[in-house]
Amino acid sequence: MSKPTPISGFPEWTPGQRMIEQFVLDKIRATFELYGFAPLETRAVEPLDQLLRKGETSKEVYVIRRLHADAEGASGDDQLGLHFDLTVPFARYVLENAGKLAFPFRRYQIQKVWRGERPQEGRYREFVQADIDIVDRDTLAPHHEAEMPLVIGDALRALPIPPVTIQVNNRKICEGFYRGIGLTDPEATLRAVDKLDKIGPVKVAELLAQTAGASEAQAKACLALAEISAPDASFADAVRALGVTDPLLDEGIEELVRVVETAAEHSPGLCVADLRIARGLDYYTGTVYETQLRGYERFGSICSGGRYDNLASAGATSYPGVGISIGVTRLLGLLFGAGELSISREVPTAVLVAVTSEERRSASNRVAEALRRRGVPTEVSPSAAKFGKQIRYAERRGIPYVWFPGVDGAPDEVKDIRSGEQVTAGAGEWMPPREDVKPAVG
Amino acid sequence: MSKPTPISGFPEWTPGQRMIEQFVLDKIRATFELYGFAPLETRAVEPLDQLLRKGETSKEVYVIRRLHADAEGASGDDQLGLHFDLTVPFARYVLENAGKLAFPFRRYQIQKVWRGERPQEGRYREFVQADIDIVDRDTLAPHHEAEMPLVIGDALRALPIPPVTIQVNNRKICEGFYRGIGLTDPEATLRAVDKLDKIGPVKVAELLAQTAGASEAQAKACLALAEISAPDASFADAVRALGVTDPLLDEGIEELVRVVETAAEHSPGLCVADLRIARGLDYYTGTVYETQLRGYERFGSICSGGRYDNLASAGATSYPGVGISIGVTRLLGLLFGAGELSISREVPTAVLVAVTSEERRSASNRVAEALRRRGVPTEVSPSAAKFGKQIRYAERRGIPYVWFPGVDGAPDEVKDIRSGEQVTAGAGEWMPPREDVKPAVG
Repeated sequence: MSKPTPISGFPEWTPGQRMIEQFVLDKIRATFELYGFAPLETRAVEPLDQLLRKGETSKEVYVIRRLHADAEGASGDDQLGLHFDLTVPFARYVLENAGKLAFPFRRYQIQKVWRGERPQEGRYREFVQADIDIVDRDTLAPHHEAEMPLVIGDALRALPIPPVTIQVNNRKICEGFYRGIGLTDPEATLRAVDKLDKIGPVKVAELLAQTAGASEAQAKACLALAEISAPDASFADAVRALGVTDPLLDEGIEELVRVVETAAEHSPGLCVADLRIARGLDYYTGTVYETQLRGYERFGSICSGGRYDNLASAGATSYPGVGISIGVTRLLGLLFGAGELSISREVPTAVLVAVTSEERRSASNRVAEALRRRGVPTEVSPSAAKFGKQIRYAERRGIPYVWFPGVDGAPDEVKDIRSGEQVTAGAGEWMPPREDVKPAVG
Repeated sequence: MSKPTPISGFPEWTPGQRMIEQFVLDKIRATFELYGFAPLETRAVEPLDQLLRKGETSKEVYVIRRLHADAEGASGDDQLGLHFDLTVPFARYVLENAGKLAFPFRRYQIQKVWRGERPQEGRYREFVQADIDIVDRDTLAPHHEAEMPLVIGDALRALPIPPVTIQVNNRKICEGFYRGIGLTDPEATLRAVDKLDKIGPVKVAELLAQTAGASEAQAKACLALAEISAPDASFADAVRALGVTDPLLDEGIEELVRVVETAAEHSPGLCVADLRIARGLDYYTGTVYETQLRGYERFGSICSGGRYDNLASAGATSYPGVGISIGVTRLLGLLFGAGELSISREVPTAVLVAVTSEERRSASNRVAEALRRRGVPTEVSPSAAKFGKQIRYAERRGIPYVWFPGVDGAPDEVKDIRSGEQVTAGAGEWMPPREDVKPAVG
């Protein structure tokens, strides 16, 4: 067999990197659970017609079929595709199980998703997302929008990554403001403003004129709004100073003040009201979130989301919600690339038990068993080679301790192969220092 | 949107069941790590030609393609399929990264796999497997075959499931024995004997005559071998009593004695040498494993594997290994169906903090923050409705405690809504009993 090669866009971490990823996912999950989000996992596939409801990502869908599909499987109705986010499957799950769920329903979902996009740095075809959403029936209280930054702030603070800033805005502010200055196509206006970081204010003004029918004064007002940014409720004064009035604008300001103030009480400096944050997706209707890694702003947002009034609907019932998604693979890929994350060893093992001879392997097995019973990850040496060679086995993997079973009544000894220190020890009592039990992520 | 319906073969657990699954996966992973297996996760897709190397499962492969694939993506060479097990991807990973890995390489891998088989009870199209393998370069010491039942025994014993019996056999015993009695097609013989449980001895004897050219006496000898079963090394005497001699048979007996004795020392009663265990797959060359849940033998094996001499090869280098795989979704699906697994609540939340009025929500947020900081999963009530209604919110989800923030200088109180007991408490000190912090799985 010829040597296989990687497939572009389908990343595979080394075991050491995978340990870091697990550490990160465990921390995220623990935080989500501390906030009472229940876990959910949906199947990897959805009916193709469900996946194509959001027009703009339809090009990215992977469809699947059985290699030897029979006639029933080939018909269009049954076509299945891999999910490209966790929101579409969640919406479907809520509709399918609405009768069994207790609302408001808080769930987290950490899963792989697939998109057939052109791979590039930080953009993959297979990647992990970690989502939380709170969905209710008919109405959803706005305080849930203020809760999202608390959860995300705690989750990301628990990780060995640079500090983050969560940028928040409210679509009602934008829409109300645009309406207040006489622009009639808020979608087109938002889409143009959303390009501010990419193309700059001059080009955005041109785009506003072309696609949203904005006059020079209207474009200028839109840009002035987008330039407002403050770590506290003072953003509201800056908006009001622009002299535009509209009831939806007032509602949006009130909601955003609440988000910023709730966050400031919990985590000063975490949240910034940044009125250029637009999030292109049509379905957001209230607060929107983006998250920057400080010092790595060039990475773009690593965690985004927002409030939507209509996640799904069935007959007269609608399901408004608010959600946010951490791009775990993207975050890790970028930080691995920047050399920002490391782990103290390549295996979980803390102790390698040496084997004095193959006949005495069961004695080494008993030592390992006693250590494992007390939670110490332990391997038994694969060979009864000279101790030097067995120690090399540990060294190559970063295993910090080698255990030597005593022969002929001599006591056991354990050696810290980093310092060379060797002490007498009993497998029923000895413990490595707490920081050596598991690999340290930093 | 009309109400969506489940897709046959793609199971979705409720949040409560998902918490049980996570509990199970955490325990399995913890045990694998205690034995020093490093985590690995491979991409979900492999080149189709890799997936089709094992002829017999080719019909089950799901191929994927981008919905709007351009010319490059449509050519046969680039065709990708979803992996149907974790062994094929692992073999590919080892070849691809052989230069970077330290051998013997111990890895575990817990992932979803997909098979386009016809769904039925306990057989899914999307399911989770939990695999361990130890792979070495050129040669692999046989003691690794004796280690597998220890790991699996510990992993399964940590789960809230009935006790298990691991049935072990050795392909060398079968092949050596068949050769010793003059049968020349060991594969065909094994395949026939493998059907013993399904079709019984009379039909197996017929099949042996038809497909392996066995005489009546040869068929009888094969069946006599398959009937041997013992919880200890006495199986060896029973084999020898059949009067067949062959060097490969002797090697197999010696190896199987070691597996059974190592397991008996670690976990008496866990392992049984059962010489009818054949495992149809061609590539096993030594010990093979199957695992029965006691009292649920009708479920079939929930954990299987074996020794293979040639996981992969590159030029003159071969990679022998031994591995075993827990069918997690299958196990859970069957036990959920049998009503064997339950959880004490449907959400992670231990405490619901009541809200006395929307103006005072931030006081409730502070209580929640203090509890979470000490590891207590806490939600704040979504509404400031009457306390009775807030308590109902907790009751419906099985949340055991409701916290009432004190108003106007009164102290906070916390109520166990199961017993009705209500006590004065401080959010900085109070802890629920240990068993209430997380949902209990049983």
